Amino acid sequence: MTTSPTVGIIMGSQSDWPVMRHAAAILEEMGVPHEAKIVSAHRTPDRLTEYAKAAKARGLKVIIAGAGGAAHLPGMTAAMTPLPVLGVPVQSKTLSGLDSLLSIVQMPRGVPVGTLAIGEAGAVNAGLMAAAIIALNDDAVAAKLDAYRAAQTDGVAEVPEG
Amino acid sequence: MTTSPTVGIIMGSQSDWPVMRHAAAILEEMGVPHEAKIVSAHRTPDRLTEYAKAAKARGLKVIIAGAGGAAHLPGMTAAMTPLPVLGVPVQSKTLSGLDSLLSIVQMPRGVPVGTLAIGEAGAVNAGLMAAAIIALNDDAVAAKLDAYRAAQTDGVAEVPEG
Amino acid sequence: MTTSPTVGIIMGSQSDWPVMRHAAAILEEMGVPHEAKIVSAHRTPDRLTEYAKAAKARGLKVIIAGAGGAAHLPGMTAAMTPLPVLGVPVQSKTLSGLDSLLSIVQMPRGVPVGTLAIGEAGAVNAGLMAAAIIALNDDAVAAKLDAYRAAQTDGVAEVPEG
Amino acid sequence: MTTSPTVGIIMGSQSDWPVMRHAAAILEEMGVPHEAKIVSAHRTPDRLTEYAKAAKARGLKVIIAGAGGAAHLPGMTAAMTPLPVLGVPVQSKTLSGLDSLLSIVQMPRGVPVGTLAIGEAGAVNAGLMAAAIIALNDDAVAAKLDAYRAAQTDGVAEVPEG
Amino acid sequence: MTTSPTVGIIMGSQSDWPVMRHAAAILEEMGVPHEAKIVSAHRTPDRLTEYAKAAKARGLKVIIAGAGGAAHLPGMTAAMTPLPVLGVPVQSKTLSGLDSLLSIVQMPRGVPVGTLAIGEAGAVNAGLMAAAIIALNDDAVAAKLDAYRAAQTDGVAEVPEG
Amino acid sequence: MTTSPTVGIIMGSQSDWPVMRHAAAILEEMGVPHEAKIVSAHRTPDRLTEYAKAAKARGLKVIIAGAGGAAHLPGMTAAMTPLPVLGVPVQSKTLSGLDSLLSIVQMPRGVPVGTLAIGEAGAVNAGLMAAAIIALNDDAVAAKLDAYRAAQTDGVAEVPEG
Amino acid sequence: MTTSPTVGIIMGSQSDWPVMRHAAAILEEMGVPHEAKIVSAHRTPDRLTEYAKAAKARGLKVIIAGAGGAAHLPGMTAAMTPLPVLGVPVQSKTLSGLDSLLSIVQMPRGVPVGTLAIGEAGAVNAGLMAAAIIALNDDAVAAKLDAYRAAQTDGVAEVPEG
Amino acid sequence: MTTSPTVGIIMGSQSDWPVMRHAAAILEEMGVPHEAKIVSAHRTPDRLTEYAKAAKARGLKVIIAGAGGAAHLPGMTAAMTPLPVLGVPVQSKTLSGLDSLLSIVQMPRGVPVGTLAIGEAGAVNAGLMAAAIIALNDDAVAAKLDAYRAAQTDGVAEVPEG
Repeated sequence: MTTSPTVGIIMGSQSDWPVMRHAAAILEEMGVPHEAKIVSAHRTPDRLTEYAKAAKARGLKVIIAGAGGAAHLPGMTAAMTPLPVLGVPVQSKTLSGLDSLLSIVQMPRGVPVGTLAIGEAGAVNAGLMAAAIIALNDDAVAAKLDAYRAAQTDGVAEVPEG
Repeated sequence: MTTSPTVGIIMGSQSDWPVMRHAAAILEEMGVPHEAKIVSAHRTPDRLTEYAKAAKARGLKVIIAGAGGAAHLPGMTAAMTPLPVLGVPVQSKTLSGLDSLLSIVQMPRGVPVGTLAIGEAGAVNAGLMAAAIIALNDDAVAAKLDAYRAAQTDGVAEVPEG
Repeated sequence: MTTSPTVGIIMGSQSDWPVMRHAAAILEEMGVPHEAKIVSAHRTPDRLTEYAKAAKARGLKVIIAGAGGAAHLPGMTAAMTPLPVLGVPVQSKTLSGLDSLLSIVQMPRGVPVGTLAIGEAGAVNAGLMAAAIIALNDDAVAAKLDAYRAAQTDGVAEVPEG
Repeated sequence: MTTSPTVGIIMGSQSDWPVMRHAAAILEEMGVPHEAKIVSAHRTPDRLTEYAKAAKARGLKVIIAGAGGAAHLPGMTAAMTPLPVLGVPVQSKTLSGLDSLLSIVQMPRGVPVGTLAIGEAGAVNAGLMAAAIIALNDDAVAAKLDAYRAAQTDGVAEVPEG
Repeated sequence: MTTSPTVGIIMGSQSDWPVMRHAAAILEEMGVPHEAKIVSAHRTPDRLTEYAKAAKARGLKVIIAGAGGAAHLPGMTAAMTPLPVLGVPVQSKTLSGLDSLLSIVQMPRGVPVGTLAIGEAGAVNAGLMAAAIIALNDDAVAAKLDAYRAAQTDGVAEVPEG
Repeated sequence: MTTSPTVGIIMGSQSDWPVMRHAAAILEEMGVPHEAKIVSAHRTPDRLTEYAKAAKARGLKVIIAGAGGAAHLPGMTAAMTPLPVLGVPVQSKTLSGLDSLLSIVQMPRGVPVGTLAIGEAGAVNAGLMAAAIIALNDDAVAAKLDAYRAAQTDGVAEVPEG
Repeated sequence: MTTSPTVGIIMGSQSDWPVMRHAAAILEEMGVPHEAKIVSAHRTPDRLTEYAKAAKARGLKVIIAGAGGAAHLPGMTAAMTPLPVLGVPVQSKTLSGLDSLLSIVQMPRGVPVGTLAIGEAGAVNAGLMAAAIIALNDDAVAAKLDAYRAAQTDGVAEVPEG
Repeated sequence: MTTSPTVGIIMGSQSDWPVMRHAAAILEEMGVPHEAKIVSAHRTPDRLTEYAKAAKARGLKVIIAGAGGAAHLPGMTAAMTPLPVLGVPVQSKTLSGLDSLLSIVQMPRGVPVGTLAIGEAGAVNAGLMAAAIIALNDDAVAAKLDAYRAAQTDGVAEVPEG
C-alpha cells in the first residue's frame, strides 16, 4: 500500500496549526499521503532529533516545518536529515514574521531550508512545492498538480468586480 | 547517456555568476548533470518564457534561479513550469539583499519558490537542496550527499584556533 | 471616437481592486478613457505577456499595475512594453507592503517602473500621474487636472477642527 | 529648433551628480533635449519654487529629481508643477538609501512622484522612463528607445562566463 | 499684550490634528501663547512659503510641524525660517511611521529639524520642548515646566497595580 | 564676560568626537560659547547625573548629546535637566545607526529629546539648532546664523560639474 | 527568614505591568522571592539611581527591567549595579517593539544587559532565566525549574488538533 | 582544584572566534575558568546535544553561545540545559547581524536566551555577564568585576581629544 506518509508536516506548537493545516489540505488535494505532528525544537528537542533522524527510513520524502519567532525547527530538522526540508515562517505577534523569516531562510552554507512566504500563503505553497517534488516520480500527483494549476489559471477573472 | 542536465541554473545577469557558480560547483561535486544560463526576466522575457515552458520536457527536474533587487526571475519561472524552483537572493548594492529576499520569498499562494539564504551561502545551499531532491530517486547522488554531509560534520574542529 | 482606453489598469487579483479602483476613479474624474483588468503575473503569465505586448498597438499610452507581496506584475509588464508603467504596491498582510514596495521599485537598470506610495494613496496618485502624462498632449485633461489640483489646494482648511 | 530642453534633471547637491548624470547620459543617447541643474529643496527653496513653477511654461514635459536622506526635492517639485515628476532616491551614507526611498515614494494622495530604484539604476531608469513619456508623441525618440531595448535584449549572453 | 502666539503648530492635514492637538494642550498648560494651522507642504506649498517666511516677523519663536508618510513639512519649514523647528512624525497607515520618522529626521547638514518620537508622545514632547526653549527667557513658563515635571515625577506610583 | 559656555556638548566616548566635533565647530563659527565633555551614561552614570543636574545653574542654555548603539545619554540627560536637549545618533558599526536613532528619538511622553540626523550631518545640525535657540535672544548669533544660511544658499552652484 | 526578595522586577510605567507581571508569576511559581516596582528612567531618575545602587546590598541577586520605546531602564540599571540585569523589550505602539529591542540589546562593551524576546514571551523568559541563575545555588529552585521544563515538554501534544 | 571550567563558550564556526575570543579574554581577566569549543547546531547537531546535555553535570554554570545568520546555537543549547544561556549575535555579511539578533533573541516562552549586542561588544558583555552571575557566589570574581568596572569608569577622560 502507498498510504504511509511521504510528506511530514511538523510545527512548533498547536498555535501554528491554523496556518500549517493549509499545507496539509493541499497535500490531501494532491493525493500525497502525509502526516502532521507537533515537534517543538525548544520544548521537545529529543522528539525533534528522533523525528528528523528517522524520517528518511520511515519513507518520508519531504519535510515541511513551520515555526514562528526565533524559528529553529526547519533548520534543525535540516541538520539531521538528508531529505529536502521546506520552511514556513509563521507570522509572529510582534515583528510580523520578519523574525520568523530571517531565522528560517538565513541558513549557513551546507544545510539548506527551502523557505516559503510568511504565513498562510507560505503553508499552501509548501504543500504545492512538496507535491511538485513528489510529482517528479509520481505521474498521478503530477497530473493533479497540473490540473490544480490549470484551474488556478482559469479561475482568474478578466475584469475586477465590485 | 545521463549527461543531459537535470538541474538548470539560471540567473538574471552575468554579474550574478560569481555567486551562482557556487550552486554549479556543488552540483558538479554531487555528480548532478546541470546547465547554467543567463535568463533575464526583465531584459529577455521571451527567453524566460521559452526556458521555463520547455524545462520539464527537456528533462530538467529542478530549476535554481538567482537574481537581485526586484528579483522576479525565480517567481516568474515558477509561474511557467510545474518543476520545483529554488530561488537565490543575490546581495544587492543598496539594501544588502533584503529587497532580493523579499521579492523572491513572498510569493502569493499558488506559485511556490523555495528560497535560500542571501548570497553565496544561498547558492551553495540551492545546489545542495537540488541534489537532495534528485537524490530521492538517485542512490549515487544520495551517497555523495551523505558523504558530503559527513565530511562537513567531520570537518568542524573541536576547538577554535588563533 | 476617443473612448478606446488610453490607460490600462491591471492588478494581480480581485483582492487588489478595493485599492486599485481609486486609480480608476481618478481617471474617470479626469476624463481619461481607461480599462481595468485582472492580470496575474504568477497565475496567468500568458495573459500578462499578451496584455503587455499588445498594449501599445491597442492604443494604450500608460499602464498602471498594482500588486502585493512578491509583486512582479509591474516589472514584468515593463519588460514587455515600451509604454511607461506605473506601479502601485498593495499593502500586504504580513510586512505592511514593504515587500510589495521593494519588489516593485528596485528594478534593475534598463527597465523602469515609476512607483507610487503603498496602498490607496498610491493608487490615487498612479491615476493622477497617468493623467499628467496624458495631459502633456491633451488640453482637456490638462485643464481637469489643473482644476483638480486647484480644488485640492482650496480644500485645505486654515485651522484644524475638533 | 528643438533643442530647448523637454526634460529637466534636478538634484539636491553636487554630490548627487555622479548618480544623476546617468539620467542625463540616457536622455542624450535617446536624443531628448534636457538640462541638469542643482536645486536644493533645503538650501535653495526659492530656486526650487521658481524652477518648479516655471517648468511647464519653459517647455519642459518631465522633471527628474534626485535627492538623498530626507529627500524632499521630488515631492516638493511635484507640489508646484502639473508635469509628471520622477524621483531618484540617492543612496545615503547611513541607511543605504532606505530613508531616501521612503521620503520620495510615500507621497500623500494628490501629489504623485513616480519613484525609481535607489542609486545609479534608478537614475538610468528615470532617464528611460522620461524618454518613454516623450516617446508617446515623438516617433524618433520611440525608435531610439526601441533600439535601445532591442540592443539590451541582444546583449544578454546565453551562458555566464568566468 | 503678550497673547500673540510665540509657538506655531502646523500640520499637513486635518487628519494629523488628533495627534498634534496634544502639542497644543501642553502649550496651553504651560501658558505659552500658540496657534494651530493646517499647512500642507504638498497641497498648499504657497501657504507654507508664506507661513515659514513670515513666522519670525510675526513674533513666533518656535515652530512645531507634524506630518506623516513622505513628511516634508518640517524640513521645508526649516528651509525657510531661522527659527528652531521641531518635527513630529505622525504614524502612517502602512509603515507604522518609520517613513514619517526618516523623512523628518534625516535632514542634510545645514538645515536642522529637532525630531520627536512618532505619534502622540512626540506631539506632547514637541510641546514640552518648545516650552523649554521659551522658558529660557520666560520665568513663568520655566516655573510651570518645573511644576509639570515635578508632578510627573510624583505621579509615578511605587508599585504596579492590578 | 560672556565666555562661560551656553551650550554643552557631551558624548558617550572619545570615539564619538570625530562626529561631535562638527557641532563644536559650528558653535565656534556662530560665536556661541560652548564646552565639550565626555559623559558616558553607562560607564560614568554619576558624572552624567552631576552634569545634567548642574547644567542650568552653570549657565548652560542647551545641551547637545551624541551617542551610538543603545544610546541612552541624550534621554537620560533630558530626564535630569529642564534645558532643551538635542540628540545626535552616532552611526553604529552593525546597524548603520538605526539603533542609535531609535534609542534617542523614541522617548516617552514627558521627556523630550530633539533628535537630529544620524552622524556628521546631525552633529552639524545640532550645532545650528542650538545656535538658533540661542539666537532667539542674542542678535549677534542671529546675525551670524543668517549670514551662514545666506552663504549656504549662495554656495549652491546652478549647474552640476564633472 | 529567606523571604526578602532576591529578584527585583522593575518597569518604566504602570502600562508595562500587564507584560511584566508574567515575570512575577513565573518567579512565584519557582518559589523565588521577588518584588515588583515602577522605576522610570526618565520620569524618576533619582529613584532609579537609588534602586540600582542599593540593589546588591538589599540582597537582590538579579534585576529584571522592562521598558518600551527608547527603553533606557535596563541599561541604566546595569550601569549602576554589579548584579546581572535582564531586559524585557515591551512592545511599542508604533514600531512593534523593534525600538524597545534595539534600545535594550545594543549596549556598548562594558555594561551588559541580557535581553529577552519582545513582549510577554520575554517577560516569562526573564523570570525563567532569573530563576535559572538563582538555581545555580538553590536546589529547591533548581528542582522546580526542572519540573517546570519537564511539564512543558510533556505538555506538547503529538498531533495538532482542530 | 578550581580550574575545571565554569563557563562554556561555544560558537558555530571557526569564523566566529575573532568575535567570541573577546568573551574568553574577559573571563580570563575575571579569573573565571572557562573553555571554548566549536559546536555547530547545523553541521554537528549531535555534538550540540551532547554538549548541552552534559554541561551541568560537567560543572558548567553558564553557557555563552555565539552564532550568525539563522543563529540556532544559543536557543537549541537553551532547549537542552537548565543552565542560563547567553547569546551573542555575530555580525552577518548580508544583513549586518539583524538576522542573527532576531534568530537569537526572539525565543518562545519557556526557553530563554539572554541576548547581548551584535558583535564584539556583545562578546565582551557576555563574558562580563557570565562573570556577574558567577560573582553572585564567588567573592574573588565579584572583586575583580568591581575593579574592572571602577577602572572602566576612571578610564573615561573628561574632555575629548583631537
